[in-house]
Amino acid sequence: MALDQPGLNPETAEAVTETDAVVIGAGPVGLFSVFQLGLVDIKTCVIDILDKPGGQCSELYPEKPIYDIPALPTVTGQELTDRLMEQIKPFGAAFLFGEQVSELQRGEDGRFHLKTDAGREIRAKVVVVAAGGGSFTPKRPPLAGIEAFEGTSVFYSVRRMETFRGKDVLIVGGGDSALDWTLSLAPIAKSLTLLHRRDEFRAAPHSVEKMRALVADGTVRLMIGQMTALHGEGANLSEVTVKTADGEERIPVTALLPFFGLTMKLGPVASWGLNLNENLVLVDTEKFETSEPGIFAIGDINWYPGKLKLILSGFHEAALMAQQAHKYVHPDKKLTFQYTTSSTNLQKKLGVK
Amino acid sequence: MALDQPGLNPETAEAVTETDAVVIGAGPVGLFSVFQLGLVDIKTCVIDILDKPGGQCSELYPEKPIYDIPALPTVTGQELTDRLMEQIKPFGAAFLFGEQVSELQRGEDGRFHLKTDAGREIRAKVVVVAAGGGSFTPKRPPLAGIEAFEGTSVFYSVRRMETFRGKDVLIVGGGDSALDWTLSLAPIAKSLTLLHRRDEFRAAPHSVEKMRALVADGTVRLMIGQMTALHGEGANLSEVTVKTADGEERIPVTALLPFFGLTMKLGPVASWGLNLNENLVLVDTEKFETSEPGIFAIGDINWYPGKLKLILSGFHEAALMAQQAHKYVHPDKKLTFQYTTSSTNLQKKLGVK
Repeated sequence: MALDQPGLNPETAEAVTETDAVVIGAGPVGLFSVFQLGLVDIKTCVIDILDKPGGQCSELYPEKPIYDIPALPTVTGQELTDRLMEQIKPFGAAFLFGEQVSELQRGEDGRFHLKTDAGREIRAKVVVVAAGGGSFTPKRPPLAGIEAFEGTSVFYSVRRMETFRGKDVLIVGGGDSALDWTLSLAPIAKSLTLLHRRDEFRAAPHSVEKMRALVADGTVRLMIGQMTALHGEGANLSEVTVKTADGEERIPVTALLPFFGLTMKLGPVASWGLNLNENLVLVDTEKFETSEPGIFAIGDINWYPGKLKLILSGFHEAALMAQQAHKYVHPDKKLTFQYTTSSTNLQKKLGVK
Repeated sequence: MALDQPGLNPETAEAVTETDAVVIGAGPVGLFSVFQLGLVDIKTCVIDILDKPGGQCSELYPEKPIYDIPALPTVTGQELTDRLMEQIKPFGAAFLFGEQVSELQRGEDGRFHLKTDAGREIRAKVVVVAAGGGSFTPKRPPLAGIEAFEGTSVFYSVRRMETFRGKDVLIVGGGDSALDWTLSLAPIAKSLTLLHRRDEFRAAPHSVEKMRALVADGTVRLMIGQMTALHGEGANLSEVTVKTADGEERIPVTALLPFFGLTMKLGPVASWGLNLNENLVLVDTEKFETSEPGIFAIGDINWYPGKLKLILSGFHEAALMAQQAHKYVHPDKKLTFQYTTSSTNLQKKLGVK
C-alpha cells in the first residue's frame, strides 16, 4: 500500500512502503514539518524511536512550562505536542513509533531507500532529519561485560512483561520507570529486588508508597547501594554484586532492568555521509538542505551561522524546507506562495472550507 | 525620564527620550521582538503609525482566522495580537501609537537619533525595523490638485473634532470610518454631506441605521455618486463637484474627509540609506542586520535568499536579531544562551519565579 493514498493514519502505517517524505523525529519541529509539507501537497511518514509524539517535549518535560513559543505565553511540553498533533491532523501523516531509521541510501531510481531497526523498508523522494539532539538511548551502567548480557538478561525497557515471569529480577533506579516496573513485575517475578543509591525516590509519591508496602510485606526487597559486578555464563546473567553500607553482597539475578535515564546520541545519522560540524548537520539558510540534495535537516540537529536551538527556529526552518522539498516531490508543478488566511485552496486542504 | 527605568508603560511613554532599542512597527513580529529583546535585558520602545498594536493582523484581518501559526491551529489576527501583548507584558515596553519615525541618523555619541512626525526625539542604541509591508497610508482620491488642500481642507483622519466645527463637511466612503465620523461630526458641522458610490454600506448596520435617521430628519445629506473636481483658493477648499445619476452638482465644502482605505508604502525607511532590493531591506540570515550596523530588519520588510513572508519567520528572525543586539546594548556582558523552560534567571524576568 502506498502512502500516496489519502487518509493514512497510525493504524495502517505498518503497510507503508512508499511515501513522498520521510520525517525522522516526531518532536515539535518534525510534527510542524508535516503541516508545512502538507500545505504544498507532500505526504509524509514520521518515524520516531520513542513510542509517542513530542520528542524531548513529551519525554523530558511533559509538564514543565515553556514560555518562549510565540503567542503561547505558557505551554507545557505535552500541551505543545497535543496542539501540533491537532494542527497537522488534516494531512493524515503516517506515524511509525518505536522504530529507528538505521540505514539510508539513494537508490538507482533516484529515491531514498530507508530501513528501520525493525527491518521495515521505505522509499521516499525526500528525507527530513528532525531528530533534535539525536536518538534517545538508555544510559548503560558502567559495569564490565554488561554488553554481553544485553537483550538476553539485561533490558533497558520492558517490551513484553512475560519475559520476566519466574525470573530473579533486579530493577535499578529511583525514578518513575524503576518504580512502575517494580509494581508491575513483582506479581510475576520469582523474586524482585529494587536497588537505588539512596533511600529517596524521584518517582510519584503514590508509587513510592505502594512500593514500600510491597517491601513491608516481603514481596519486594529494597536495597540501598550500587551494582559493582555482573556474573554469569555467556549471555545469561546469574548473579549481581551489590555494594551497600553493610558491605558487598552477591544476589541471584537472571533479569536486570537498569533505569539510569536516557542520553542523546546522534545515532545512525552520523553514518549517512552528511557534512557535520561537532555532531550537528550543516545546512544552508535558504532551504535547510544538507550536503546531500533531497535530505534536509531542521531543528536542534542542524547548524548554520547564528543557529539557536529554539523550537521556534525549527518551525521557520520547516517552512523554508517545504518550498525546496516541493521541487523534488512535484518537479512539474509550479508553487505559488499562498497564505492560509486568504487562500481558499489552502483552506480546503486544512478542511476548513 | 529614561526608558532604562522599569515599569514604563503606554501612559508614561510620552516622556521617553532614551531607550536601548526602538522597534518600528507593532505588528506581531515587532511585538515578539520585545519578548526576545527583553530576555536579554534590552528595554524597548515600540512605535507604530496605527493607533493600536497588531499591524496588519489587527488592521486588515482582526476577525479572520490564521491557520499557520505553530501550535495555534486557528487564531484570528486580533487574538494573535492579544496573545502576544500578554506574552510581552513582563518586559514593560513603552508604546508610541499614531506616530511615524520620520528621521533616523547616527549621532556623534554612537547612538541612533530618531525623530517622529509628531516632533518627538528619541535616542537608542539599536533600531529594529519591523514595519511589515511598510507604513499604512490613506489612499488619496484621484483628483487633480488635491495635494494643495491636504492638511488645511482635506484630512484623511480626524485628530481633533474641533477642526470641523462650523465647516461645510463632505465625508466620502461607505465603511466604518466614514459612517462613524458622519455620526460624530454632524452635530458640530455647519453642514454635513455623506457621499458614497452606491447606496450600500460596509459599515456596521447599527451605524448605517443611525445615519439614515440623520438623513431622514435633514441633519445629514446623503449623495450617491463620486467626486469629479475640487475648487478653491490656495490651500482653502470652497466647493466640490459631485457626479450623481442625475448629473453634476457643485456643493459647498470647506472640509473634505475621504475614507478610501489604507495602502502600504515603504515610507521614510527608504531614505535611511539601507541597502534595498525592490523596496525590501536586505539582511543577513545570521543576525538579520541591515547594511547599517545596529539597524536590524525583521518580518515582511526584509529580504534574504529563501525569504517567505510568514509571521513565523519573523518570530525566528527576532530571536536571532536579539543575540546581536545584545552585543551593541551590553558590550561588556557575555551572553549565555538559556532556555525559558530551565533557566530560573529567565523565569524571574518573566515574573513566573
